[in-house]
Amino acid sequence: MAEAAAIDAPARRGRGTRRDAAAKPPGVPYIVRGIPTYDVLSEENLAKIERAADRILAEVGIEFRDDPAALDHWKRAGATVEGVLVRFEPGMLREIVSTAPSTFTQHARNPANNVEIGGSAVVFSPAYGSPFVMDLDRGRRYGTLEDFRNFVRLAQASPWLHHSGGTICEPVDVPVNKRHLDMVYSHIRYSDRPFMGSITAEERAEDSIDMARILFGADVVDRNCVILGNVNVNSPLVWDGTMTRSLRAYARANQAAVIVPFILGGAMGPVTNAGAIAQSYAETLAGCALTQLERKGAPVIFGNFLSSMSLRSGSPTFGTPEPAIGSMVVGQLARRLGLPLRCAGNFSNSKLPDGQAMQEGLMSMLSAVHCGANFILHSAGFLDGLLSMSYEKFVMDADLCGALHSYLAGVTVDDNTLAMDAFLEVGPGSHFLGSAHTMRNYQSAFWDSTLSDNEPFEKWSGEGGATDMAARANRQWKKTLAEYEVPPLDIAIDEALCDYMNRKKAAMADAWY
Amino acid sequence: MAEAAAIDAPARRGRGTRRDAAAKPPGVPYIVRGIPTYDVLSEENLAKIERAADRILAEVGIEFRDDPAALDHWKRAGATVEGVLVRFEPGMLREIVSTAPSTFTQHARNPANNVEIGGSAVVFSPAYGSPFVMDLDRGRRYGTLEDFRNFVRLAQASPWLHHSGGTICEPVDVPVNKRHLDMVYSHIRYSDRPFMGSITAEERAEDSIDMARILFGADVVDRNCVILGNVNVNSPLVWDGTMTRSLRAYARANQAAVIVPFILGGAMGPVTNAGAIAQSYAETLAGCALTQLERKGAPVIFGNFLSSMSLRSGSPTFGTPEPAIGSMVVGQLARRLGLPLRCAGNFSNSKLPDGQAMQEGLMSMLSAVHCGANFILHSAGFLDGLLSMSYEKFVMDADLCGALHSYLAGVTVDDNTLAMDAFLEVGPGSHFLGSAHTMRNYQSAFWDSTLSDNEPFEKWSGEGGATDMAARANRQWKKTLAEYEVPPLDIAIDEALCDYMNRKKAAMADAWY
Repeated sequence: MAEAAAIDAPARRGRGTRRDAAAKPPGVPYIVRGIPTYDVLSEENLAKIERAADRILAEVGIEFRDDPAALDHWKRAGATVEGVLVRFEPGMLREIVSTAPSTFTQHARNPANNVEIGGSAVVFSPAYGSPFVMDLDRGRRYGTLEDFRNFVRLAQASPWLHHSGGTICEPVDVPVNKRHLDMVYSHIRYSDRPFMGSITAEERAEDSIDMARILFGADVVDRNCVILGNVNVNSPLVWDGTMTRSLRAYARANQAAVIVPFILGGAMGPVTNAGAIAQSYAETLAGCALTQLERKGAPVIFGNFLSSMSLRSGSPTFGTPEPAIGSMVVGQLARRLGLPLRCAGNFSNSKLPDGQAMQEGLMSMLSAVHCGANFILHSAGFLDGLLSMSYEKFVMDADLCGALHSYLAGVTVDDNTLAMDAFLEVGPGSHFLGSAHTMRNYQSAFWDSTLSDNEPFEKWSGEGGATDMAARANRQWKKTLAEYEVPPLDIAIDEALCDYMNRKKAAMADAWY
Repeated sequence: MAEAAAIDAPARRGRGTRRDAAAKPPGVPYIVRGIPTYDVLSEENLAKIERAADRILAEVGIEFRDDPAALDHWKRAGATVEGVLVRFEPGMLREIVSTAPSTFTQHARNPANNVEIGGSAVVFSPAYGSPFVMDLDRGRRYGTLEDFRNFVRLAQASPWLHHSGGTICEPVDVPVNKRHLDMVYSHIRYSDRPFMGSITAEERAEDSIDMARILFGADVVDRNCVILGNVNVNSPLVWDGTMTRSLRAYARANQAAVIVPFILGGAMGPVTNAGAIAQSYAETLAGCALTQLERKGAPVIFGNFLSSMSLRSGSPTFGTPEPAIGSMVVGQLARRLGLPLRCAGNFSNSKLPDGQAMQEGLMSMLSAVHCGANFILHSAGFLDGLLSMSYEKFVMDADLCGALHSYLAGVTVDDNTLAMDAFLEVGPGSHFLGSAHTMRNYQSAFWDSTLSDNEPFEKWSGEGGATDMAARANRQWKKTLAEYEVPPLDIAIDEALCDYMNRKKAAMADAWY
């Protein structure tokens, strides 16, 4: 039953990223970065932010609501607990998280799709959590289970995404208390890549992990990460019991929680970047530490989601410059902790797959890539301030993820790439089109988008139909869905999963909120 | 007549960029970067690229065609000259360019608009050289002098551009041999920012500089940079006489030439990035050195324009990942030389101001910003592989340039931005909207685009008209042109310029090629 090889020991902690490394190693189904991270802040200023976070943790504290077991953990660890307010001595949480692995493997049901999370690895995962879906034909409407499956299929079909994601859109046609079963089953059934489970209630987290146990075998799950759960802080400085119970369920099962504050500067945090970063550091660090108190050595991902606000209208804004540059600082702080990082993604507030969508998306996505994020949630499909999952933007973003494979490969410097033989062959004033060096290298030389138009104007406006990128994306997602092939799944496992799901559903009345 | 203060001494050479600096200083009409450059390559690999360039220069050489004075310079400097082929001992050109300033001031007719070029300064200048213009109403057509003036007006009206540019589009309705006069006059008349002159013939370069002398006074021009000329290498490894004569005309007048190879990988250079970078380094270095042989100490800008090719169709591609990451290496090499850098810009091959345009544009523009480019030509308007200047993309790009002001300010870390008073005031579970810290900081906290839609979906689809960014840009450029006010110009100078232009035009028959 267990297809995944068991690799039990967490990797040794290491800092920094490789410089001038080779491109993505052949056969590795994720990116190994060939360029360093972009470190924008001095060590002195990083230390100031850490000290500010220490003061927040010691002087203001964090509330842990509706989870007595979490409070018991904190008491045993030596924190100051007064009611639900917990305060921490400086350095205490950094000491606790030192038992978490700096990198780990998330196993997929197809072991060829196992991903590393941490170090120099970069994993692209679809957007997460939209209640609506949209496309150019039908506009915006509530997501359904069929939409959910479609996005799982589109992700599975893309060579440039590495992960099936989680709540890729809300399947609003399924009862709230049952849809997690359909979502986890759909990830397993329609994809053979790694995936995420539910966190909206402790029992739904447990159900998600139980389904992973059916797929991989209970022993394998106890020794390896096979499912992620993305848990959110209720910023500022509040952890709700629903989240900490789910967080502890994942940690208890040796599965990785992703710990993510969502700070909209000016509302759930200060309007100034340094303060918002200090706050998110404190909130995330507390969540990461709680996983280690639940089970020492459990994998955990240091997460972050900075955003900004239009102070004219009060609306949240996405893909803006301040969160992008702030993400670089978050990356530096995560590396000082030696924890895998989730940060930023392909964010936009646009309601259409237009210029705004791709400009905001890339501003944000490049910050994820530059800051050293290892697990990049929201890599594809995000529109409308995360309220909508867009079919067109999904394939446009996936194409961009392809370009980022070439980008992250960096510049290789060796005798072949320096091309001295070509200069000696071609000389001044000639061209390189037919040179031996070109013939030897052209097939792998340049990223070639399947959605960008690179034709002469006359061809674009004539037989090309004068399309924009969104219209080409509209054609592409339909073609991809039409050609999609479901990856084979062992029938016994499939039946066991369906049986589990049906028993669970039968045992509960539908709940719609 | 001379409005510009005379600052004669070139700045001392310096390397590297500031870290954690404050944002754009008040009143400085360009950006002083508050984040470091993004250095992706190791010193060892940079040295390998330099050694490859040295071998190209020594073993293959560069042809200098149709310019005997340039060959004489090279002979006197000790290069090996055989016919038009010139070869250089390793290190010789680096020694020659060491007399060029690492940073200099380009003066504007309004001294409040003087820009620094070099060091930590970043100057945004419009796109350059398109024969066509386009907008959403009229589509693509040849550019006219009125289009040229419109783009000068749009640039002048934007608070986020710092420079009026040069051949902002080709005014195809004016004879080829006379249009440089109208272009230089239009920059002076409709803008009070720094600008560029002609390079398409030595006498047109001289005319451009003469018009600058009328504006600033001959003495001021001899002692200060007041005009730039952008000269191109005929890659691979050929400098045409038209270009070197113009280059020398600018240097002779103590004005800055921008030295730019345009290398389309696979055609005018190798398909591999390292080789294309080594070639462009050799070509640019030779051009920079020639300026110093013409006039020691003349300002010069180390330029670069990497591009890639669709190897399926043979078409050039723009805004792709390989040139973007290669630009970071070019920046590192320019800083080792201590020369001001022009690199990358807001490139795209799209025929519309759509998702492709903004994705490709930002990929390329962020590489310019990250690589430490000091003078960023093509910051606004570039579409259609530089064949078309787009009215809509111009204002979309200018808005993006505004966002990049906030981005380049970086993350300020001090007591105010760390916001400890806000955390102590707000505490867990409340919000920051009305806190004293928010009230104190909100006005300057976040970049607020004038073109991005940040409204709720219902408002966007209702009273907002469900527009995309291009439609909003279409409205904006018309409004900006309608509200444009011409900056005052001394009547005597205006008359002297018109008199010069009319005499020059009367002395030549029209030439249309």
